Amino acid sequence: MDFSIRATNVEDCKDIARMIVELAEYEKVTEHVKITQKDLEQDGFSKNPFFHGIIAEVPEQHRSKDGHTKIGYALYFFSYSSWTGKAVYMEDLYVMPEYRGKSIGKALMSKVAQLGLAAGCNQLNFTVLDWNKSSLDFYLSQGCFDVTASMGYHCMRCEGEAMEHLAQP
Amino acid sequence: MDFSIRATNVEDCKDIARMIVELAEYEKVTEHVKITQKDLEQDGFSKNPFFHGIIAEVPEQHRSKDGHTKIGYALYFFSYSSWTGKAVYMEDLYVMPEYRGKSIGKALMSKVAQLGLAAGCNQLNFTVLDWNKSSLDFYLSQGCFDVTASMGYHCMRCEGEAMEHLAQP
Repeated sequence: MDFSIRATNVEDCKDIARMIVELAEYEKVTEHVKITQKDLEQDGFSKNPFFHGIIAEVPEQHRSKDGHTKIGYALYFFSYSSWTGKAVYMEDLYVMPEYRGKSIGKALMSKVAQLGLAAGCNQLNFTVLDWNKSSLDFYLSQGCFDVTASMGYHCMRCEGEAMEHLAQP
Repeated sequence: MDFSIRATNVEDCKDIARMIVELAEYEKVTEHVKITQKDLEQDGFSKNPFFHGIIAEVPEQHRSKDGHTKIGYALYFFSYSSWTGKAVYMEDLYVMPEYRGKSIGKALMSKVAQLGLAAGCNQLNFTVLDWNKSSLDFYLSQGCFDVTASMGYHCMRCEGEAMEHLAQP
C-alpha cells in the first residue's frame, strides 16, 4: 500500500489528538490522557516547540473505515545524555490497527532515527510497556535494547501536588 | 553549611565534566562516559541548547579536599508527554560525597521542579538505577513514584550501528 511520511503541521493536531486517544485505548490507559488538540497546537507549533512530529498518510482511495487518511504518527523531541551527548527521544509511535503489518511503523521509526542522526544525535530513546510483547519484539528486531532489563534503570516521575511541594524553596 | 545554586554558564563545563565522571564512578559505569568538556560547551551553550544546567557552589572556606567550590549539579531539558503535555526531564543530579546530607541535592532537585513549573510543565521525569536504594528512597520521600514498577514502562535505546541501520530508508 502506498503511504507517505512528512513533518506535521498545525492542521494535523486534530488527527494527532485522535490517534493519541486510540494509542491510549490500545495501552489501556485512557484515564491518563489529558491532552487536547489545542494543547498540541500551542505546545508543538509555536516558538520553541516542546515536541516535533511526523505523520503517515495514505491516498484517498485507501482511507480508513472511519474516513481517515492520516493513519499513523510519531512524536519526538531532542534530549541529552551526560554520557554520550545529543539524543532524540521518541515519545509516541502509532499506526492505526487496520494499517499494521505494512511496515508503516518501521518507516516512521526509521524517519525519527534519520532526523536524530541529521541533528547529531548518538542515541534514540523511548519506552515500551512490559506486557506489549509484539512492540518489544519489533524494537528488539530493529537492534534496540532494553535499558531497564540490562542496566536496571527505572523511570521515575513527580507530578501534581508532589511537584508543587518539591518546588517550594 | 552555606551553599548557593545558580544557572550554569559555559565556564562551568570543566567542573560539570569532572562531576559527570564522579557520578559515573559512583554508578560504576565509567566505561559508558564519552562526553567531554568541549561537548558540553557546544551542546549546552550555543543557540538551541540540548540541555540546561544548575550548579551548587560553596564559599572558598568550605572548598573540597581537592580544592573545588563547584560541588554539585543538575542537568535538565524540556520534554513532552502525549498524555499530559509539557514536562521537564532531569538527566543528572549529583552532589560530591563530602557534601551529602546537607540538603544540597534536595535544593538542586527543588530548583529543577521550580524551573519546570515556571515553564508550564506538569511533570518532572528522571531515572534511577534499581540498586541505588538510597537515591530511590530519597525520591520516594519527595513524593515521586516509580513508573517502571507501577505501570511497567521499560526504557529502550537504539544507538551506534543499529541506529544507522534503522535510519536507512
